[in-house]
Amino acid sequence: MCGIFGVFSFSEENISKKIYYGLYALQHRGQEGAGIVVSNGKELFSHKGLGLVPEVFNEGNIQSLVGHVGIGHVRYSTTGSSVIENCQPFIVSSSLGNLAIAHNGDILNSHILRESLEKQGHIFTSSTDSEVIAHLLVKELLKTEDIVQSIINVSKNIIGAYSLIILYNNTLIGVRDPNGFKPLCIGRDENDNYYISSETCGIDVVNGELIRDVHPGEMILINKDGFNSYKFSDSLKTSSPISSTTCMFEYVYFARPDSLIDGISVYNVRRNIGKILAKEEPCDAHIVSPVPDSGVTSAIGYSEELNIPYYEALIKNRYVGRTFILPSQEERDLAVRLKLNPVKSIIKDKKVVLIDDSIVRGTTSRRIVDMIKRAGAKEVHLRIGSPKIISPCYYGIDMPTKEELIANSKSVDEIKDYIHADSLGYLSIEGLLKGIGRKSLCLACVSGNYPTDILCKFKNTDKYPNCNCGRL
Amino acid sequence: MCGIFGVFSFSEENISKKIYYGLYALQHRGQEGAGIVVSNGKELFSHKGLGLVPEVFNEGNIQSLVGHVGIGHVRYSTTGSSVIENCQPFIVSSSLGNLAIAHNGDILNSHILRESLEKQGHIFTSSTDSEVIAHLLVKELLKTEDIVQSIINVSKNIIGAYSLIILYNNTLIGVRDPNGFKPLCIGRDENDNYYISSETCGIDVVNGELIRDVHPGEMILINKDGFNSYKFSDSLKTSSPISSTTCMFEYVYFARPDSLIDGISVYNVRRNIGKILAKEEPCDAHIVSPVPDSGVTSAIGYSEELNIPYYEALIKNRYVGRTFILPSQEERDLAVRLKLNPVKSIIKDKKVVLIDDSIVRGTTSRRIVDMIKRAGAKEVHLRIGSPKIISPCYYGIDMPTKEELIANSKSVDEIKDYIHADSLGYLSIEGLLKGIGRKSLCLACVSGNYPTDILCKFKNTDKYPNCNCGRL
Amino acid sequence: MCGIFGVFSFSEENISKKIYYGLYALQHRGQEGAGIVVSNGKELFSHKGLGLVPEVFNEGNIQSLVGHVGIGHVRYSTTGSSVIENCQPFIVSSSLGNLAIAHNGDILNSHILRESLEKQGHIFTSSTDSEVIAHLLVKELLKTEDIVQSIINVSKNIIGAYSLIILYNNTLIGVRDPNGFKPLCIGRDENDNYYISSETCGIDVVNGELIRDVHPGEMILINKDGFNSYKFSDSLKTSSPISSTTCMFEYVYFARPDSLIDGISVYNVRRNIGKILAKEEPCDAHIVSPVPDSGVTSAIGYSEELNIPYYEALIKNRYVGRTFILPSQEERDLAVRLKLNPVKSIIKDKKVVLIDDSIVRGTTSRRIVDMIKRAGAKEVHLRIGSPKIISPCYYGIDMPTKEELIANSKSVDEIKDYIHADSLGYLSIEGLLKGIGRKSLCLACVSGNYPTDILCKFKNTDKYPNCNCGRL
Amino acid sequence: MCGIFGVFSFSEENISKKIYYGLYALQHRGQEGAGIVVSNGKELFSHKGLGLVPEVFNEGNIQSLVGHVGIGHVRYSTTGSSVIENCQPFIVSSSLGNLAIAHNGDILNSHILRESLEKQGHIFTSSTDSEVIAHLLVKELLKTEDIVQSIINVSKNIIGAYSLIILYNNTLIGVRDPNGFKPLCIGRDENDNYYISSETCGIDVVNGELIRDVHPGEMILINKDGFNSYKFSDSLKTSSPISSTTCMFEYVYFARPDSLIDGISVYNVRRNIGKILAKEEPCDAHIVSPVPDSGVTSAIGYSEELNIPYYEALIKNRYVGRTFILPSQEERDLAVRLKLNPVKSIIKDKKVVLIDDSIVRGTTSRRIVDMIKRAGAKEVHLRIGSPKIISPCYYGIDMPTKEELIANSKSVDEIKDYIHADSLGYLSIEGLLKGIGRKSLCLACVSGNYPTDILCKFKNTDKYPNCNCGRL
Repeated sequence: MCGIFGVFSFSEENISKKIYYGLYALQHRGQEGAGIVVSNGKELFSHKGLGLVPEVFNEGNIQSLVGHVGIGHVRYSTTGSSVIENCQPFIVSSSLGNLAIAHNGDILNSHILRESLEKQGHIFTSSTDSEVIAHLLVKELLKTEDIVQSIINVSKNIIGAYSLIILYNNTLIGVRDPNGFKPLCIGRDENDNYYISSETCGIDVVNGELIRDVHPGEMILINKDGFNSYKFSDSLKTSSPISSTTCMFEYVYFARPDSLIDGISVYNVRRNIGKILAKEEPCDAHIVSPVPDSGVTSAIGYSEELNIPYYEALIKNRYVGRTFILPSQEERDLAVRLKLNPVKSIIKDKKVVLIDDSIVRGTTSRRIVDMIKRAGAKEVHLRIGSPKIISPCYYGIDMPTKEELIANSKSVDEIKDYIHADSLGYLSIEGLLKGIGRKSLCLACVSGNYPTDILCKFKNTDKYPNCNCGRL
Repeated sequence: MCGIFGVFSFSEENISKKIYYGLYALQHRGQEGAGIVVSNGKELFSHKGLGLVPEVFNEGNIQSLVGHVGIGHVRYSTTGSSVIENCQPFIVSSSLGNLAIAHNGDILNSHILRESLEKQGHIFTSSTDSEVIAHLLVKELLKTEDIVQSIINVSKNIIGAYSLIILYNNTLIGVRDPNGFKPLCIGRDENDNYYISSETCGIDVVNGELIRDVHPGEMILINKDGFNSYKFSDSLKTSSPISSTTCMFEYVYFARPDSLIDGISVYNVRRNIGKILAKEEPCDAHIVSPVPDSGVTSAIGYSEELNIPYYEALIKNRYVGRTFILPSQEERDLAVRLKLNPVKSIIKDKKVVLIDDSIVRGTTSRRIVDMIKRAGAKEVHLRIGSPKIISPCYYGIDMPTKEELIANSKSVDEIKDYIHADSLGYLSIEGLLKGIGRKSLCLACVSGNYPTDILCKFKNTDKYPNCNCGRL
Repeated sequence: MCGIFGVFSFSEENISKKIYYGLYALQHRGQEGAGIVVSNGKELFSHKGLGLVPEVFNEGNIQSLVGHVGIGHVRYSTTGSSVIENCQPFIVSSSLGNLAIAHNGDILNSHILRESLEKQGHIFTSSTDSEVIAHLLVKELLKTEDIVQSIINVSKNIIGAYSLIILYNNTLIGVRDPNGFKPLCIGRDENDNYYISSETCGIDVVNGELIRDVHPGEMILINKDGFNSYKFSDSLKTSSPISSTTCMFEYVYFARPDSLIDGISVYNVRRNIGKILAKEEPCDAHIVSPVPDSGVTSAIGYSEELNIPYYEALIKNRYVGRTFILPSQEERDLAVRLKLNPVKSIIKDKKVVLIDDSIVRGTTSRRIVDMIKRAGAKEVHLRIGSPKIISPCYYGIDMPTKEELIANSKSVDEIKDYIHADSLGYLSIEGLLKGIGRKSLCLACVSGNYPTDILCKFKNTDKYPNCNCGRL
Repeated sequence: MCGIFGVFSFSEENISKKIYYGLYALQHRGQEGAGIVVSNGKELFSHKGLGLVPEVFNEGNIQSLVGHVGIGHVRYSTTGSSVIENCQPFIVSSSLGNLAIAHNGDILNSHILRESLEKQGHIFTSSTDSEVIAHLLVKELLKTEDIVQSIINVSKNIIGAYSLIILYNNTLIGVRDPNGFKPLCIGRDENDNYYISSETCGIDVVNGELIRDVHPGEMILINKDGFNSYKFSDSLKTSSPISSTTCMFEYVYFARPDSLIDGISVYNVRRNIGKILAKEEPCDAHIVSPVPDSGVTSAIGYSEELNIPYYEALIKNRYVGRTFILPSQEERDLAVRLKLNPVKSIIKDKKVVLIDDSIVRGTTSRRIVDMIKRAGAKEVHLRIGSPKIISPCYYGIDMPTKEELIANSKSVDEIKDYIHADSLGYLSIEGLLKGIGRKSLCLACVSGNYPTDILCKFKNTDKYPNCNCGRL
């Protein structure tokens, strides 16, 4: 995950607040930290910090960021330790000038590239892939003295997912990997400001107009000489983004429903999924109810298809998120109760079909099913708007190990028993493709087929000393 | 508004964290400040602050609050100035011991009572009604030396809305005014802890069981001698809370949908309102959509009744709330854009019927209608799940002046034009009563008939120098 | 302790920053909290907080305090608990308008007055004497409708130490108790701003000129009608402040050396004390050295008188004060080492005579003597610039109980042994009076003779359950 | 400036709090920021922040730093911008492990080295010399795989001042440049913990014992194999540290008086300087007074030598340092008044000889002389405990440009007139050498003779576009 945003103002407007608003709209993609760097043509100004966008930035520090071109980043915590050193954009100075990088995705061979760079005497101050990319890019720049060629060369050496926004000496650059794993789009507003954003909702908030998605394998350059596009990969020989392997979970869970990804409305996808799920896994229940917030839209579709009334049987506390939980036995349940409360009056004596977007470990699903049963439900049936997750993601989505994925070792029936549901149904892979309406997607986590080489990052490490996953 | 919560533990458990969780569940009733005071039988411990519950409290200060009886408060800002002096519970020491008061509601004659107390030499350190009540209560206590009689005596002198939770020398007291304007309920858990809470969701979060609502005109005392109830008013001669005049907006807008008020499910009310609204004000549209979050449940009912598909045409940014908006012309619109974004793909060329809970000034409605039209809607019809608001509330809900209420001076047709809607329909008063399912409610803001004497607080003041409202 | 400061601007200048600077100069009188309240003639604006003056105030909140008359307070923690409720000025509204009180001193009968007020129905929100005074003052104002007469009446009922600065409806009032325990002085600047300050250093910092000290038993009123003085007590029949019983420790320890108290330079007093101490308790040593910072000036006088070279044998870490000390056995000594470090090169093999201002418990003195011996001193002689402290202070100086005062139960010789010194000498009471150059002083802590009735505040309380001090 | 501190515990004690206390004692060497990094043999733990040591560290973060070897740094702001990126220790990971560097001093050719590294593809994330050293060191390590040889090789390429403490894979290393510009010393305590510290006061605070100073051109290695010393430079062919060119200002101004530098007591130096200054520049005055705090010790020596009484005529507000000054014309003077206040009673009608450590621009001296004259002094004579500063420092002391140094262009007589003094006298260079008692020192700023090549860092830059200083 992570959200990235960039602006170039041909009208030489001060754009730091545009980035601030853009990051605000992308806040759902990362809550751990945020950063902005802008250039006024001579100097860089930057500010980063841990926390939500409105916690990191205030009127004072936004006004101190003066520039007409700049980039921003919201960070999603993929590891436990959250330190300011890992906040992006990653900013370096080199003999060819300043370079700032905001990255969404995960580079599979970054550990190999890093090792190789370290052997050449390079030193690292963070544990981010962005720093690896920065080193590679500067090395290429010294050879080629051309940013376009340098990015092309670097892209040949990195395997994995990368939507990048780069600020290089007053040039704004957007790059989307050849697989198009992560979304990236381009917009423009009436004041001749150009935007690059993880999602279209970032362009909407600044009153911009969507131009189009960045194509997989495409690089966009925007500077005072204008707007240019370069195709740096034709490995996929695709004429359309939707032939690439964008992450299916962007549609199912991560992206904001008001965004379009590769021209497809996320909202419509989720509603379609609900309808297809209803056809594939119907249920004779009194009410359909979502696990909020991620199951809401699919539940509406499911309800509509089967003509079962839609009810919000679980109410979410909108203020949860920052609570500390006092450590004690009983308070594990409390964490769920603080967040969700069942509406007993609509649950009592009802057969409830509950719609959720996915099951990972199964522990939260079990707590929710139990909660609804305690509230008086006669039966609780669970329907999932995605296929069984059987393999970890190596492209940037935080998931537990393969062993911890409940669907990796258990059948649907066993999972049903584990989570205490009366019945359980998953969307099929075909249903998912149809619901999204794309020819291809990255389905690695539900199929085990990875669209790129997989280099096991964990082999022979402390984390997985006995890894024998068969990957490099 | 404001939320109040109290606990008495017969098992002498430390209950500060129970109050913390209770306030957490009541956070929607007030975000300006929070406070907790507990007693260990000898000493009071308290902590208050400005901000959300998890901002005011942390593990350290919760652990310093040691006691088996205590009360808490979340404050809703009714005025612009937010100062710590006005945070509750209001705590005083007197010759008869310690007294802490948490208040939800508005006392209409508090200015008169305060003036009179001041003339007798009393001094005030805050501008809250709670301080006035504290003075009156201590005066009565000195006379009667009996807390029950004192509260009865004070209640005879105060006019208005008051749900109170009082901590008096290790006794926990709950009081609900004879009109029952604001909700207040009682619960218990397995460890013999008794709870008094603004809403039932506060009792749910601590895994308590609802006993019942406090009756209008009832006082509940809980101390080591047990649990007692006193009826301090029979002016209403009601045998049931639902014959009293509880604020209709608690059902329509304020309370959490998972709460029951006077035995009636808030969630069901909102859904019913949608259905009745559909019958009273049907609309031939392609889609039904709510203004999130308050219109959601009614929109579902409306959709179901008319069999028009339900769509979430506006997506709310879950992280909005703490943004600073840089001051500039264009950024008034931005405030709405940061919060809500239309899903163009489902709006384009559609007739949309939009469901909202109420219209106050009309300015936000207009911005939203415009936003949906700009997103491509063919027509935008607005349906409101409550009657026209024509009179201000004097019982604790923050509303603009009568002049600023758009429905005070404009007809439905004129309002429709003002907000740029293609049609507009309000729920009738009869529909509202039917939807809630009560014989009586406080309908002052939609009918102009106030259930109590109204004493104009603003007459001849700087705020309304020319007030000639006819009220005292 | 505590420091108080007030300003009235006849030129209607905005004076909040004057108060800020004044409090800054008085910071040594209290580091626990600070507050400012100002009036613009119509409204009060106030800000208070825990911490040092520059921590509590910033450019933003100072600029929000708009007024031409106002008062401020720095609070000295006399109890362990530091809560914002006890921060001053104490501000109340009454039927006769606004009243804010800043108090330096301790009212001995405040518990009795408070009890009596509570019995009359008054309620209290803090534990400060200021709140008691506020209640009494408002009561009198209601009777007399005259602030001067009211203060005269109140003064007849309170026993103890009180330098007060009061803001009453745009009038600035300074009051000094008939004993003149605490200092209070008046100044003026070129812009027709009048100042009342605990010490003259507060007037210096705003570039004011000292007019004179407020006399014991005098009240100063400053408002748009001018500057007036009232004598509210002639119990002392003194024509001069220096015949009153000002606290001797103000000269010896508390006040800043650059201040004048009742016309007498604090710096000169300390130097004189050193010289007199040298005559009374000479010592044959190689070097004279102070315990910094409080012993510095007396050590210089001592050195000069005996012609023994003056050396700073202990260096104080200027940044100490805010350290947390990790709790462990060895770290009690560390606390002293962090603060003071001996200069071994000047101590080694030397006979050192060390000058300190006082000995309270003796524990710190012992640590310091040990430290100097470990640094190689041949002998360590201690000379104290005040007499033996044998009785607690009831007028506002934080002291341990009588039992904890080492000189209460031990002879000079026994104390010498306890602190490991080779010899020990105290200043005589006569020497102290001579050094200060006043006919009279409050010498209660060194003589046991209290200048007022003493009402034991602690009798039969938890703090001193077995108190049999013989006082009321 | 800057202060550095390191510990290696042979008893495998957890040493993070030792570093905390050590930095505390070195706080006078840098107040802008602080950082600690420790190793437990496997992992590094670090924490850095802006502010004073007790502001950056708290019990929680100190306890999270677990290790038996570690280093710390306090940062002195040499530029206006204070950013966390520049806080040290600078920590990097490389192919040969982890490296953390704490640096005191200024590398003159760092810009050239950086340029050269950048041309080889190295990238930089800060503007510190430490990062340049880190790059060079890792490059050498890759070649030699030997840390000792690597440091020797790097030292041959860097010109300037560097006392370094390095943590390299559980080895603690101390390095002092061949000129010995900055102090660095070694200590040990009873628990077999070894210390390296900028000053001896850092060793005192942890109850350690001074072993000796690190020699100029020496490198100290401490790891589980023991303690080793390497001489990496014999360019100076010195057998004694005091033949090297240590910065004279360490003795005169920067170091704490309780420290020894190269075996010489800083306190004694300052007292000697006062005596020598008295002989060289006597003055017929009534009193001798210091400009606190830096002039105190020399003033005592001056007073003693001439037998003129020593008085503290200026009192320093101990709490100054964190004030914000509201911007207005009159408040430039206020900044001085907030910090210093004259004791009028001892100044009035007196001839005062004022002792200060140095004059840089002359503006502060003028304000102080004026202040004392306004306080009533008959004459004010200024004596300076160091020679005229005529040339900037390039070794790490923040000084204005040559043009701004008043003594660069003005004679003593002209300076005397500028600062409004009645007479002015400086210590001679000979007097300084004699006072310190060393054969050699870095006297660049008072003589213009630099002990190393000088490479102009500023040539043709924005800061000095027309620099023609003749240096490389």
